[in-house]
Amino acid sequence: MTAKNLDVVGIGNAIVDVLVHAEERFLGDHGLTKGTMTLVDEQQAQRLYGSVGPGLETSGGSAANTLAGIAQLGGRAGFIGRVRDDQLGGIFAHDIRATGAHFDTPPATAGPATARCLILVTPDAQRTMCTYLGASVGLDPADLDLEMVARARVLYLEGYLWDSDAAKRAFIAAAEVARAHGGEVALSLSDAFCVERHRESFQELVDGHVDLLFANEMEITALYRANSFAEAVEQVRGRCRVAALTRSEAGSLVLAGDESHPIEAVTLGPLVDTTGAGDLYAAGFLHAYTQGRDLLSCGRLASLCAGQVVTQLGPRSQVDLRELACRHLGWQQPSASQAP
Amino acid sequence: MTAKNLDVVGIGNAIVDVLVHAEERFLGDHGLTKGTMTLVDEQQAQRLYGSVGPGLETSGGSAANTLAGIAQLGGRAGFIGRVRDDQLGGIFAHDIRATGAHFDTPPATAGPATARCLILVTPDAQRTMCTYLGASVGLDPADLDLEMVARARVLYLEGYLWDSDAAKRAFIAAAEVARAHGGEVALSLSDAFCVERHRESFQELVDGHVDLLFANEMEITALYRANSFAEAVEQVRGRCRVAALTRSEAGSLVLAGDESHPIEAVTLGPLVDTTGAGDLYAAGFLHAYTQGRDLLSCGRLASLCAGQVVTQLGPRSQVDLRELACRHLGWQQPSASQAP
Repeated sequence: MTAKNLDVVGIGNAIVDVLVHAEERFLGDHGLTKGTMTLVDEQQAQRLYGSVGPGLETSGGSAANTLAGIAQLGGRAGFIGRVRDDQLGGIFAHDIRATGAHFDTPPATAGPATARCLILVTPDAQRTMCTYLGASVGLDPADLDLEMVARARVLYLEGYLWDSDAAKRAFIAAAEVARAHGGEVALSLSDAFCVERHRESFQELVDGHVDLLFANEMEITALYRANSFAEAVEQVRGRCRVAALTRSEAGSLVLAGDESHPIEAVTLGPLVDTTGAGDLYAAGFLHAYTQGRDLLSCGRLASLCAGQVVTQLGPRSQVDLRELACRHLGWQQPSASQAP
Repeated sequence: MTAKNLDVVGIGNAIVDVLVHAEERFLGDHGLTKGTMTLVDEQQAQRLYGSVGPGLETSGGSAANTLAGIAQLGGRAGFIGRVRDDQLGGIFAHDIRATGAHFDTPPATAGPATARCLILVTPDAQRTMCTYLGASVGLDPADLDLEMVARARVLYLEGYLWDSDAAKRAFIAAAEVARAHGGEVALSLSDAFCVERHRESFQELVDGHVDLLFANEMEITALYRANSFAEAVEQVRGRCRVAALTRSEAGSLVLAGDESHPIEAVTLGPLVDTTGAGDLYAAGFLHAYTQGRDLLSCGRLASLCAGQVVTQLGPRSQVDLRELACRHLGWQQPSASQAP
């Protein structure tokens, strides 16, 4: 068996975010549903961009945000995703490597540009996303560094990848390699609309391939067409080893076998932008999990990281997360020099 | 004489900023002087970028920030500067147009990439800049929209342009057109090192071409090799119609003939990042000036805008500056529909 010298390796869309402030009305005028992610083609992306105010650009991508967070927490992280060899691709690669995460997927030298996500932040701090997948959608099994996957304790996959057939095949191939090498597989359901688009295959995936599941209330109820959160909880219980279900300011619930651990939300300041809340929840959870912490501790670090990222604009933490964990949870983080 | 249907037109470097947090030590290790701007070539830019943490990208450029601010205040603004037809050039063009400013300089279709400025924000909120001028440096008289210059009440020039011979020629050509059409010429000295590099020609420029001068304490003392701020004040007095001299938290001093108007600094919250403070000071001043306000009012709006931008990361205000002026100064801003 390959030595486990990486804590978490993630596969996801490699995206640069364009954050803009927008009024509620803008969402309605453009047929967007608040809090969700809509896929757009290049023309739609250009048209939307042309109608919004000045933006702030920052690396994003759901799994990429999670892996950046794990690296910032001191975990040994790797990311697999596809950019183009263009300026935004260069920014994405710089930013994820600068967190300490490994990122070696070669940039595409032809085809669509690096993926962009236009994130509309409304006055209530909610984010609504329009994603042009660009180069990201071309991720296929040939791009996978399976040797890196084999070295990870946990392989983390974002549900958004399901929107591309090639990426979906890459996703399943990677899950099989991870399992074959004694690793665990974690999945984030990503978005309720994404769950709607791929409900059956997500259900099969959860039953057959997933050890740790991350989902928010809308996503888990969509997955099982449940009438309530409680009903969804009963549906998912026992289908995977651990399910961490988030409910925004109502905190989260961590399920494992018959256990249920309710976790309180953490408030560190005024709510500015919810972009990245779920991604950083998963970062905190998986970091604690791969450090051998109990589930309650996993949930607490998850809540803390999510609570931090919503106090700032953008999905990558601008503060030192290790220092935050020390201060709020009294954790002594292992030093970064333990990374391979 | 051409109708004055633009309040301010600016000429400057068209730059995308990359904002990163850095420790004090990093500046010393890389031979950088805190609070200043250093020019770097493409290789140096890449090397520096490779050694810093994750960044946040946002449109910048000194005069461009000022014109964006004027447009956000409801003024009729135009900007002239050169980007390449690449992704960062597209972001720059989007962002300045999204403020309501006119920007029609055609992007270069060959040659160096759009200019980038790596801005290192230290824990004391000071910014230290390393600029790769890229496509921006190729601005020459042929790129000038002289018809736009003729339509402006005030032509605003950034001293940074002096670092390029072609841009310098463009700069003087534009100043002559502005004057010939009854407009006024404003200049920002930009940076003390920039003043050191071009002291004599800046002195001639101030004496011969400039109506309104913006400088901070370091820049104005560098311009006249003065031993104190008081000495610099006596040197500059009478050389141009108005001089607005900024002194960070000590406020500013507005000089005109024998008049001296001390202006207090405005504090709106904790100091986060001084990037853009001088640019937004000039925006507030010039907007009030072109609306026919007295010099004391110009200084007050200048201080307010500078006081706002230092409470956030990056040089373009993320709040509604018109609303800010209404709230803090009781101003009724003219409606944006008056723009041409």
